[in-house]
Amino acid sequence: MASPAIPDIIISRLPIYLRALTRMASEGQAITSSKDLGERLGISSAQIRKDLSHFGEFGKQGTGYQVAFLVEKLGQILKVKGEWEVALVGAGQLGTALARYQGFSHRGFHISVVFDIDPAKIGQWIGGYQILDQNEMPRILREQRIRLAMVAVPAGSAQAVADRLVEAGVKGILNYAPINLTVPNGVRVQYIDPVVHLQRMTYYL
Amino acid sequence: MASPAIPDIIISRLPIYLRALTRMASEGQAITSSKDLGERLGISSAQIRKDLSHFGEFGKQGTGYQVAFLVEKLGQILKVKGEWEVALVGAGQLGTALARYQGFSHRGFHISVVFDIDPAKIGQWIGGYQILDQNEMPRILREQRIRLAMVAVPAGSAQAVADRLVEAGVKGILNYAPINLTVPNGVRVQYIDPVVHLQRMTYYL
Repeated sequence: MASPAIPDIIISRLPIYLRALTRMASEGQAITSSKDLGERLGISSAQIRKDLSHFGEFGKQGTGYQVAFLVEKLGQILKVKGEWEVALVGAGQLGTALARYQGFSHRGFHISVVFDIDPAKIGQWIGGYQILDQNEMPRILREQRIRLAMVAVPAGSAQAVADRLVEAGVKGILNYAPINLTVPNGVRVQYIDPVVHLQRMTYYL
Repeated sequence: MASPAIPDIIISRLPIYLRALTRMASEGQAITSSKDLGERLGISSAQIRKDLSHFGEFGKQGTGYQVAFLVEKLGQILKVKGEWEVALVGAGQLGTALARYQGFSHRGFHISVVFDIDPAKIGQWIGGYQILDQNEMPRILREQRIRLAMVAVPAGSAQAVADRLVEAGVKGILNYAPINLTVPNGVRVQYIDPVVHLQRMTYYL
């Protein structure tokens, strides 16, 4: 099993490996190698072998990795064999797209509740979810013991939303608002901001 | 000016600094320090000073950084003082949210064309854009000399779309499809996949 001492940079690559391996499996590929996987991902085979070696022996020298076995193991390591319930806060354009996104369920996640603060939206339906009142959020999150949330609210409200999520017991926040959040130790935040990614490319143009 | 030898990991942090500094400026804050900025971002002040030192002298020992000056400089380094034209491929749920997103223009980007392959969508309008035929994409991108694109198509079509973008001269792709793309040297890809970010957090739960 995983040791807590493994650097986060290694953990950050595991979902990428899992995604590529899952795709290989869906394409009927039974065996891969660190070279094969590395070529798909633009990562060196040595890096992949080193990363995986933190978690055990997954392949034999010269015979490569069993794709299905590695998918299974990575799913265990990342704890996505089951399904995590996720709260979505914000039912605007982006929140609606997320609520309707079909790509969560087979990769370990299920949006279970959607909140918004706008009285005109509360009670409406998007993607099979009835939008709930954000004021009810702390109670509902506690009752449902939800530990993950996606924040798709304007930058000006994101910190206040994060504070309430943390109070309600959420331990992981995927923040789409273009602002850095301050959270206590023990709570993790991941950020998605397309502009940050675009700016990271324009430097090189 | 920037040297090409600066590690990409440093470049990846500059948009985060720029975002936080721009926010400080909008809040009326004129002076900051590496300590202040670091606390906002959860990055050590030493790291921030070291990162910025690659690009020149931005602050004086003991007096901190002028926020507006640093915003200006980072904008220059990242080449986002003007506005980059960006093509958006895919006008589904996510593409529509991106087309309507108001957060690009004041941070250096402007979606100038939106493409889709679906005859039912071509000619329709979203967020002020008339959806164009993806078959026209290579010609239009070349004519408009567009070098950046966002890909919001299903995983199964993303590589083919990327190939056509590259052929048409695109040098930077922000890929929302949950699949790794293979591109030639000289072309950069950035990835946005919410599941990858969520899986990176569940490891710790």
